[in-house]
Amino acid sequence: MIIVPEKEIAALMTRADAFTAVEQIFASMSKGSAYNFPVIREAIGHENALYGFKGGFDKSGMSLGLKAGGYWPNNLEKHGEINHQSTVFLFDPDTGKVKAMVGGNLLTALRTAAASSVSIKHLARKDARVMGMVGAGHQATFQLRAALEQRAFEKVIGWNYHPEMLPNIEKIANEAGLPFEAVPLEGMVEADVVISITSTFAPTIMAHHIGAGTHIACMGTDTKGKQEVEAALLAKSTVFTDEVAQSISIGEAQHAIGSGLIMETDVNELGAVINGTHPGRTSAGEITMFDGTGVGLQDLAVAASVVDLAVEKGVATIVDF
Amino acid sequence: MIIVPEKEIAALMTRADAFTAVEQIFASMSKGSAYNFPVIREAIGHENALYGFKGGFDKSGMSLGLKAGGYWPNNLEKHGEINHQSTVFLFDPDTGKVKAMVGGNLLTALRTAAASSVSIKHLARKDARVMGMVGAGHQATFQLRAALEQRAFEKVIGWNYHPEMLPNIEKIANEAGLPFEAVPLEGMVEADVVISITSTFAPTIMAHHIGAGTHIACMGTDTKGKQEVEAALLAKSTVFTDEVAQSISIGEAQHAIGSGLIMETDVNELGAVINGTHPGRTSAGEITMFDGTGVGLQDLAVAASVVDLAVEKGVATIVDF
Repeated sequence: MIIVPEKEIAALMTRADAFTAVEQIFASMSKGSAYNFPVIREAIGHENALYGFKGGFDKSGMSLGLKAGGYWPNNLEKHGEINHQSTVFLFDPDTGKVKAMVGGNLLTALRTAAASSVSIKHLARKDARVMGMVGAGHQATFQLRAALEQRAFEKVIGWNYHPEMLPNIEKIANEAGLPFEAVPLEGMVEADVVISITSTFAPTIMAHHIGAGTHIACMGTDTKGKQEVEAALLAKSTVFTDEVAQSISIGEAQHAIGSGLIMETDVNELGAVINGTHPGRTSAGEITMFDGTGVGLQDLAVAASVVDLAVEKGVATIVDF
Repeated sequence: MIIVPEKEIAALMTRADAFTAVEQIFASMSKGSAYNFPVIREAIGHENALYGFKGGFDKSGMSLGLKAGGYWPNNLEKHGEINHQSTVFLFDPDTGKVKAMVGGNLLTALRTAAASSVSIKHLARKDARVMGMVGAGHQATFQLRAALEQRAFEKVIGWNYHPEMLPNIEKIANEAGLPFEAVPLEGMVEADVVISITSTFAPTIMAHHIGAGTHIACMGTDTKGKQEVEAALLAKSTVFTDEVAQSISIGEAQHAIGSGLIMETDVNELGAVINGTHPGRTSAGEITMFDGTGVGLQDLAVAASVVDLAVEKGVATIVDF
């Protein structure tokens, strides 16, 4: 079997490869040729850790397996390790034998960034010029970097609950040759594309913070109770997601559905837009929203891609198993 | 991280070690210091395969992880590989990092055999002399070999739907120095201990096939709809299991519960007997039944044990991950 350790991923996986893998898997999910298994997520009662499995099978790409791991909030302080820890295991769909083990930490960051980037490609206005960021943590830098490749942006504006973290994303904007401006939430109305990447249980972004014609990608909500945007904003938007079942149960749509503002049938698959079976944005004034909840198939897709690259470049560790 | 490939397991894991690991984990489950996660089991729509994950966390033994794999019915014919394929992954409960990967095929056979053996130790009459087998496939040989170590048996009797397979278990009996006799199902009434290890959707063993004072371990039912013994037999027996939730939903007890013959509270944990919080057998005439459904923690327990042995004996493969 093939082993690709965490430390090899950065040199192997490009944003472009992650983008392609995620775009393809969203398309396959919408076609019905790839599906995610139910998610296991357990508070194990040790180190306040959340641990679980996200699995799936992609019949087109012949990827079968899971990402296992979770969130260990004391890791950094106690062990100097990052708090999110995950590993991807790929199996041979023809035999059920394990095929590869791949470090999942950087891949998770890249696939999450790729998801909002794919949504921007397919849903944002072509003439989008102002990129808005709500959130400025570690993952925000990945989201912004991938987003900036999708349109000819001229400026990045940003807000964060802790403004002292804004230099994280200012740096990314500047690397791309763009000016950065810190704004209050009300200033976000200027953005043509917004990515929110925060972890909150009360909405930060209100409907009036988002201007007409904006595409907003909500990337921080993946748990019952979490919420980044006011439910009323979903009622004003055309809502897309990676997986409808997750969007309405653990994504942003849970709240708008719960309060009766939208129905399950109002939540559309981004994959359908990629496949051309949903028109996507139909006017310049429309607000489009991507509710990115994160699915196991994204992890399998980028891991399968990295395994191919590792084999191709001769850096895969092969062990007898 | 540590890798113990399938081919190393036979030389490392003894029946005695598997027995100890399974006995301890049943005890921990009953104490509440170890618990299984919900099971994922998916018909993936390729090769008629069933694939899934059985995970858990044992806080006493500090084992965290899962067994992944399943049943590929065409493996033997198409690829010369066994149809059941599985791999166990252990994680460090302190950090969430992957710790070990262990071949799970032989371990599954050993831990399943250990479960019925543990049940015989704690529930069969001390003076049991006749061992009865219903089922004579590959797994039956493991169950019988482990069972014979628990009492001073003098004879093995066996029945199988395909009688031409009975030599499989006759061989095991003879290896233990015991005579073997093929019997009709009615002849099973002579047995003091019975193990059923078949895969059927209609009961084979009727209540009148089991004599007073017998201990019967039903090891073949792990899916909704499967059934090895007539539900009426459960009503006549004191019923024990590895995990009550599984017993009543996917184990033998599903049918007796469904038809109202017994209640959930009639299904007892074998771990409680091991811990001394349930008296177990209380009379020589009592029929005791073990409904062995198979839990992820058994897999983690034997895998953790094998990792320790592999490290101790210097045969573990260590890879940088």
